[in-house]
Amino acid sequence: MAERVSGEAFLARLKREIPLTCHMGLSTPNWNGQQLQMPAALAPNVNDKGTGFGGSQVALATLCGWSITTLWLEEAGIKASVVVKESQVEYLKPVTGDFVVETELPTQAVLDEALSRYRDRGRTRLNLEVRVRQGETVALRLQGQYVAFEP
Amino acid sequence: MAERVSGEAFLARLKREIPLTCHMGLSTPNWNGQQLQMPAALAPNVNDKGTGFGGSQVALATLCGWSITTLWLEEAGIKASVVVKESQVEYLKPVTGDFVVETELPTQAVLDEALSRYRDRGRTRLNLEVRVRQGETVALRLQGQYVAFEP
Repeated sequence: MAERVSGEAFLARLKREIPLTCHMGLSTPNWNGQQLQMPAALAPNVNDKGTGFGGSQVALATLCGWSITTLWLEEAGIKASVVVKESQVEYLKPVTGDFVVETELPTQAVLDEALSRYRDRGRTRLNLEVRVRQGETVALRLQGQYVAFEP
Repeated sequence: MAERVSGEAFLARLKREIPLTCHMGLSTPNWNGQQLQMPAALAPNVNDKGTGFGGSQVALATLCGWSITTLWLEEAGIKASVVVKESQVEYLKPVTGDFVVETELPTQAVLDEALSRYRDRGRTRLNLEVRVRQGETVALRLQGQYVAFEP
């Protein structure tokens, strides 16, 4: 079991490895081993109407699911390649201010099975729900399938 | 019927109105009134593996569908608010070089009906397929529903 990754260290790594994340107004994520919350500013993510650009929101939601899958595996001592495989996205409300992108890991039973599949076959997957939330309002919901495989 | 919008003018407008598009390596789109192709460089859109970041690709695909809906309506003389409502996204192959994001309008019969719905009800929608393509390889396919309404 590796140590808990800090939000500061994880954000620095995102910005180093994925250049677009330098331009998306991200501030320090909150990761407690179960839930990941990534706060983002509206200003760099606006559209022509001054509300949240759908492309920014879906990019950040996709990133959030990738991030929690990566954090979970690394804390289990596994350095896998993680990719998004498919997603369904619903745009529920416009975003009119700063927002949070958040997701949480499935139950321990699901995680245990996914981990044992990875150890047996060198490949596993997680199904995640990711939300873009402004205050109490869910603006976007993404259901994504993330695949991890031996690099 | 308004004049054909030039790719140069449309790209300048995207960069002015949607700040994230200044950081996505877009070059001049090709728009012929039926198909829209938006070329993009890989470098600003890479992930930790040096291939295309899924978040960049889905953002650009979402933008491409929004763009063709906007261009179609404006060339029909309509200034509507256009938003993406929902999408299904499949990540088929990694992107390893510069790529094109492309979509095309539905048949004229579908467009005529969508336009007459807008004129009757002040609201309409288009279902579009958008692809991210590197050479002959389709890397991502997005099925999106875009809604246009009176601002």
